[in-house]
Amino acid sequence: MTTSYKRLDKDNAAVLLVDHQAGLLSLVRDIDPDRFKNNVLALADLAKYFKLPTILTTSFETGPNGPLVPELKALFPDAPYIARPGQINAWDNEDFVKAIKATGKKQLIIAGVVTEVCVAFPALSALAEGFEVFVVTDASGTFNELTRQSAWDRMSSSGAQLMTWFGLACELHRDWRNDVEGLATLFSNHIPDYRNLMTSYNTLTNNK
Amino acid sequence: MTTSYKRLDKDNAAVLLVDHQAGLLSLVRDIDPDRFKNNVLALADLAKYFKLPTILTTSFETGPNGPLVPELKALFPDAPYIARPGQINAWDNEDFVKAIKATGKKQLIIAGVVTEVCVAFPALSALAEGFEVFVVTDASGTFNELTRQSAWDRMSSSGAQLMTWFGLACELHRDWRNDVEGLATLFSNHIPDYRNLMTSYNTLTNNK
Amino acid sequence: MTTSYKRLDKDNAAVLLVDHQAGLLSLVRDIDPDRFKNNVLALADLAKYFKLPTILTTSFETGPNGPLVPELKALFPDAPYIARPGQINAWDNEDFVKAIKATGKKQLIIAGVVTEVCVAFPALSALAEGFEVFVVTDASGTFNELTRQSAWDRMSSSGAQLMTWFGLACELHRDWRNDVEGLATLFSNHIPDYRNLMTSYNTLTNNK
Amino acid sequence: MTTSYKRLDKDNAAVLLVDHQAGLLSLVRDIDPDRFKNNVLALADLAKYFKLPTILTTSFETGPNGPLVPELKALFPDAPYIARPGQINAWDNEDFVKAIKATGKKQLIIAGVVTEVCVAFPALSALAEGFEVFVVTDASGTFNELTRQSAWDRMSSSGAQLMTWFGLACELHRDWRNDVEGLATLFSNHIPDYRNLMTSYNTLTNNK
Amino acid sequence: MTTSYKRLDKDNAAVLLVDHQAGLLSLVRDIDPDRFKNNVLALADLAKYFKLPTILTTSFETGPNGPLVPELKALFPDAPYIARPGQINAWDNEDFVKAIKATGKKQLIIAGVVTEVCVAFPALSALAEGFEVFVVTDASGTFNELTRQSAWDRMSSSGAQLMTWFGLACELHRDWRNDVEGLATLFSNHIPDYRNLMTSYNTLTNNK
Amino acid sequence: MTTSYKRLDKDNAAVLLVDHQAGLLSLVRDIDPDRFKNNVLALADLAKYFKLPTILTTSFETGPNGPLVPELKALFPDAPYIARPGQINAWDNEDFVKAIKATGKKQLIIAGVVTEVCVAFPALSALAEGFEVFVVTDASGTFNELTRQSAWDRMSSSGAQLMTWFGLACELHRDWRNDVEGLATLFSNHIPDYRNLMTSYNTLTNNK
Amino acid sequence: MTTSYKRLDKDNAAVLLVDHQAGLLSLVRDIDPDRFKNNVLALADLAKYFKLPTILTTSFETGPNGPLVPELKALFPDAPYIARPGQINAWDNEDFVKAIKATGKKQLIIAGVVTEVCVAFPALSALAEGFEVFVVTDASGTFNELTRQSAWDRMSSSGAQLMTWFGLACELHRDWRNDVEGLATLFSNHIPDYRNLMTSYNTLTNNK
Amino acid sequence: MTTSYKRLDKDNAAVLLVDHQAGLLSLVRDIDPDRFKNNVLALADLAKYFKLPTILTTSFETGPNGPLVPELKALFPDAPYIARPGQINAWDNEDFVKAIKATGKKQLIIAGVVTEVCVAFPALSALAEGFEVFVVTDASGTFNELTRQSAWDRMSSSGAQLMTWFGLACELHRDWRNDVEGLATLFSNHIPDYRNLMTSYNTLTNNK
Repeated sequence: MTTSYKRLDKDNAAVLLVDHQAGLLSLVRDIDPDRFKNNVLALADLAKYFKLPTILTTSFETGPNGPLVPELKALFPDAPYIARPGQINAWDNEDFVKAIKATGKKQLIIAGVVTEVCVAFPALSALAEGFEVFVVTDASGTFNELTRQSAWDRMSSSGAQLMTWFGLACELHRDWRNDVEGLATLFSNHIPDYRNLMTSYNTLTNNK
Repeated sequence: MTTSYKRLDKDNAAVLLVDHQAGLLSLVRDIDPDRFKNNVLALADLAKYFKLPTILTTSFETGPNGPLVPELKALFPDAPYIARPGQINAWDNEDFVKAIKATGKKQLIIAGVVTEVCVAFPALSALAEGFEVFVVTDASGTFNELTRQSAWDRMSSSGAQLMTWFGLACELHRDWRNDVEGLATLFSNHIPDYRNLMTSYNTLTNNK
Repeated sequence: MTTSYKRLDKDNAAVLLVDHQAGLLSLVRDIDPDRFKNNVLALADLAKYFKLPTILTTSFETGPNGPLVPELKALFPDAPYIARPGQINAWDNEDFVKAIKATGKKQLIIAGVVTEVCVAFPALSALAEGFEVFVVTDASGTFNELTRQSAWDRMSSSGAQLMTWFGLACELHRDWRNDVEGLATLFSNHIPDYRNLMTSYNTLTNNK
Repeated sequence: MTTSYKRLDKDNAAVLLVDHQAGLLSLVRDIDPDRFKNNVLALADLAKYFKLPTILTTSFETGPNGPLVPELKALFPDAPYIARPGQINAWDNEDFVKAIKATGKKQLIIAGVVTEVCVAFPALSALAEGFEVFVVTDASGTFNELTRQSAWDRMSSSGAQLMTWFGLACELHRDWRNDVEGLATLFSNHIPDYRNLMTSYNTLTNNK
Repeated sequence: MTTSYKRLDKDNAAVLLVDHQAGLLSLVRDIDPDRFKNNVLALADLAKYFKLPTILTTSFETGPNGPLVPELKALFPDAPYIARPGQINAWDNEDFVKAIKATGKKQLIIAGVVTEVCVAFPALSALAEGFEVFVVTDASGTFNELTRQSAWDRMSSSGAQLMTWFGLACELHRDWRNDVEGLATLFSNHIPDYRNLMTSYNTLTNNK
Repeated sequence: MTTSYKRLDKDNAAVLLVDHQAGLLSLVRDIDPDRFKNNVLALADLAKYFKLPTILTTSFETGPNGPLVPELKALFPDAPYIARPGQINAWDNEDFVKAIKATGKKQLIIAGVVTEVCVAFPALSALAEGFEVFVVTDASGTFNELTRQSAWDRMSSSGAQLMTWFGLACELHRDWRNDVEGLATLFSNHIPDYRNLMTSYNTLTNNK
Repeated sequence: MTTSYKRLDKDNAAVLLVDHQAGLLSLVRDIDPDRFKNNVLALADLAKYFKLPTILTTSFETGPNGPLVPELKALFPDAPYIARPGQINAWDNEDFVKAIKATGKKQLIIAGVVTEVCVAFPALSALAEGFEVFVVTDASGTFNELTRQSAWDRMSSSGAQLMTWFGLACELHRDWRNDVEGLATLFSNHIPDYRNLMTSYNTLTNNK
Repeated sequence: MTTSYKRLDKDNAAVLLVDHQAGLLSLVRDIDPDRFKNNVLALADLAKYFKLPTILTTSFETGPNGPLVPELKALFPDAPYIARPGQINAWDNEDFVKAIKATGKKQLIIAGVVTEVCVAFPALSALAEGFEVFVVTDASGTFNELTRQSAWDRMSSSGAQLMTWFGLACELHRDWRNDVEGLATLFSNHIPDYRNLMTSYNTLTNNK
């Protein structure tokens, strides 16, 4: 008996960045802030690198939730940007779903703050409409580990694929022969241990 | 292939608070007491806010298990209150089940102490009778993390939705335009980080 | 759509204690030794209390694995005791399976050391033969948390119910009116927090 | 209703060691390095002990990822060794899959670095082709626990069996009467607590 | 050889609350927010209860650091309130030191955010001027545990007494016969476990 | 330059058990309850074993703090027992200090609940009067680790010796030749790992 | 009795960066790599910001220890750079000590990899020669927490001041009126939570 | 004001290995067994490498404590070996102290099991007689972290230097120019991360 492998395909995937807002980020306490910032920017960089259609959305950005993190805004100046007037589940916002469907992609990569709401709600809605959903667990944050585990359980039970940004990049890339330098640079910028490997390697091979 | 999204609907949900008794609370060691107290009261406040039918029950409250936490009693003076004469699984108590069925709701939000007994037993019974069950994991406590994980696994495998009070509130509310002030106040009262965001925001915008 | 509730029934359950041997216990590092000792003895006491047929088995007890913990031997002097000559999975031992089948019970409560071997192997074998299996996670120990989590995942995926001794006792007892004193004593002996509740309660009510 | 027990059979199992390279190992931070090194070598030793066909593969070993750990190379001088020219998922490499199919085995034991990529990708591919997959969780490492948990969830949901090297050895061996000395030596070399048990035992029994 | 016991005396102690501002609180990650909020308010309540002279100060409160937490402001409407124009070490602000000296007290109880700056700097300055300094460690917060441990080591090495709010209250009160009800209420409001003890106790004794 | 070794001498030591009361024990959350109960009873057993003068004291035992743990009362039926009418620092109670001075001992072994109050206050008072003080850290409990660390720092800075019950027993005993059986039994009763060693040892040597 | 406050003075302080080399960094496991990288760069940025004389040194940089992290080299192109030919304690290298003495500063801020060697050895040597030593604990890394705690204890016992980079910056700056923009930018670049505060603040105040 | 640097000198140091016995090792639970075994053997290897006089001692090795770990015995066949007939503090054994004094060394490096007894007692005795004492914290083990912290505090307060084996080796070696290959091999054998660095380095430089 075989199981299907829900495998990411860069020609069939879109990225949804939900509510990474300056105020809401102060609620995130299940991941260290230095690491979390790095993960979110790494995800954004890989969306860019693989030229995946990317959709930004925010909740109440003129209130205490605060504005979208400026780095994300800057990276995707032309992306659909839906400032939701009130819907908590982004999927309840027609423009958001329209923007997704306009991409024609069937695989949705979702990250956001906070995990059990801004990520889980649209993830469950998308699964119910037949999309394949890939949750970027390390670019999604919430109040504490107990909350995270509950949210993961709910999403996983409904068929969401739990992934992290590095696995995502690797599954999208498939073969280093497609391009070494670009992806290696992305890894070097976001994985200090990898950067150190490259530094040592380059020093030694340049000394030849 | 789609998966169904078991989504909370405030017109179809009831809340069951099981055995939050002064004595039993001393058994709870998987969540810090300040946080746990806050979570339970937040859940009670949201039941009130959304006007969800709420049912209270206790086990042996005249013995060492102790009386129901007074705050809960005070918040729901008119709620059905079933002091069970002996049944450990509240679902084995006819009055309790009758009270639930009298609400006409098909979605049950359950929290209690201790998780693997007072929550898991009625949750499994309710699932077996076709209810949708939403366990409030952060308003349910038990002896330690190992016990919690076992209990979650058992409930999740049977189809219970694991949620926390904040996700619950968001899924019930659906859209901020239904009401901002009431829910924001509830969040401000129970999420210190959110209160701080609001304090800073209000100070700055009042200074305009 | 309903899910079945695999509920313990004291008239249909047997207990299997697998390889709680003095040497093997030194391998257990995922649970603190004071707590683990208490959990194993609590499980034994409840098997006794509910008069559940109990089967003891050991692996190579004359070698470094060491003898069965004397307290268990003493509690069940007349229980079937299978010192396996070599089979690692107790279910591969004919006498062990015969002893189980002789009880006529269809619900098997299993605990042992180490979790991923002495518990998981017979649990998976029993599930494959149509038994209902209840793993006592806190009376089963192993090398570390990573190993435990792997073992739980494997057993849970095959349908085992993960429980702890306290939940077990409560599900078997069903109603305090069946007997208060016996079970309360058992809890007082194995749950320090519960004992304290009883001490305070008894002191205050005796002062009346 | 019975569940099938996917049980390892030493006549039907092969071992895949994926990308245990000197550079990549510096990325592993979810397991302490002393323990991880021990686990990988224990897995290699048991593959040898049970004479399981073993296949080695590396990714970009002339770059910063570094060479295969020399101990593994030395233990399996005649094993198929596939230095992949670029495929990230080893299953995308034809030679790798051919080598696996040439063994004629249907049970694949997989370990590697990093878990969510080098292990999860071929595991999911193999499951999709109908193989039984056994992931050696403690001989596979990655960036942190959050990443590990995501990877485990993805593999487990697709039917992979999560195991550790000790459970693997026990399930393959089945009965100590097949051989005591060899396996006991392997355990003594890789489990300090077991070695201590044997030291004490041997000292006491030699003193007779 | 005897050591002197630097013992708090309610007639000789003043409380300094340094920079508990809505923005800065989002930097505190070494203590869970529910617990931290409770600890700060408990400290404020006890300052009030023991009628200790209390001094409030803030750093740059019109900028991103945000306003003083409103609850503190409300509790001490008549306390000296020094909004520092720029000094990071509050002790560098003349008005602050004058306010302290005006109290005539020689024992300073200090709490603030963040520990290694807003608490440690004035603590070290005060010790250098011959004051006895009592740091309220659980009402002071900072980025992470590593930072906290460094800060504690620096303060303790210079002779600061590390205390928590509960110990502080007990050392100030000295004898329950001075007043039971007031202090018990304070404890009940800030220690959920204590509140539960009182609830059970009161229920049982009222039933007499 | 030599440092003096403050070494316990069984002829010069007394034990003070401060406020191990049924209610107060529910406040202890820095040590697991199974372990804490064991540690307190181990300390009591060793006080008995070494015939050290032992003094019991309680705070407000007729209120919510609850009665002294019955096991302690039972073990020391003839010990001075000071139910303090209100003094929080036991050293402020004349009868308590008189009882201590009546022993003629200069080394005081102190344990109690909670650490930063019931242990630290009398410890600091005793140090100030020239006693040598040995705090039994693992038989003293408090709210959380942060509180414990603060309390330890305060006591250690004043010259208290931080010890655990096992080290205490070993330092008091000095030489196994004074008595093997009694102390080994005490260890076997309170250290599961040690009991297992003895079980295996006895089994093997009895088989000779 | 007063204690002296060893307070950093930007006119009397120099920074020593010891062995932050690409290979050695793979040994650091007591701090998460994202956070550690950030801390080291923050320290470098503040040395630059306060124009503190900075000295770089490496150990065996042409061997497996690897080259100095390129970012540090780039930030301090004109700083003394001592590639030590073999001395493990940098203080044993004459050029290193000469470079320090040439600065004329008496306060040494030291960070390095690994803590117990590259930081502790020169710290202890400098203390022995009468320098004031400030260890930057969060920009120094080592194998694990046990090692770190041992190293801190050794340095602290000899009089080293344990600080983190943020406290360092604050103590050096003294007063925000000296410059707001530069330091706020530095904090914004290295403290994600602070950056978020500034983003929200700027958005709200720009909207005025 | 300068502090003295108690610096290890290989010509003035001896190593004491106290009670690393097969039975007692099962009591060690504050360090993972794979890591602990490695640390103890690394310490032994460095004693050998630096030709430090080494003294072995055991407590009751014919009883349940078990024999000395065979690897240690094998490494030091000619070292003084004192099987103590009963003294718990090794320093109370005349032969042990004689053997130490016979070395003529004034710096004692001590490791053992368990930390608070077998290490702390002789450490405190040695300090009292004017020796410099260096405790090898990572080659000494005990029941849990609480016990370890108490033991460290007691030893550190009396002037013991807390070190780990790697720092020890570095302080003894002083300069890599004394010998590279021997020490690098020792590090490679006991630090997996270092071994990986060397593997990558050697591969790259051999490819030149």
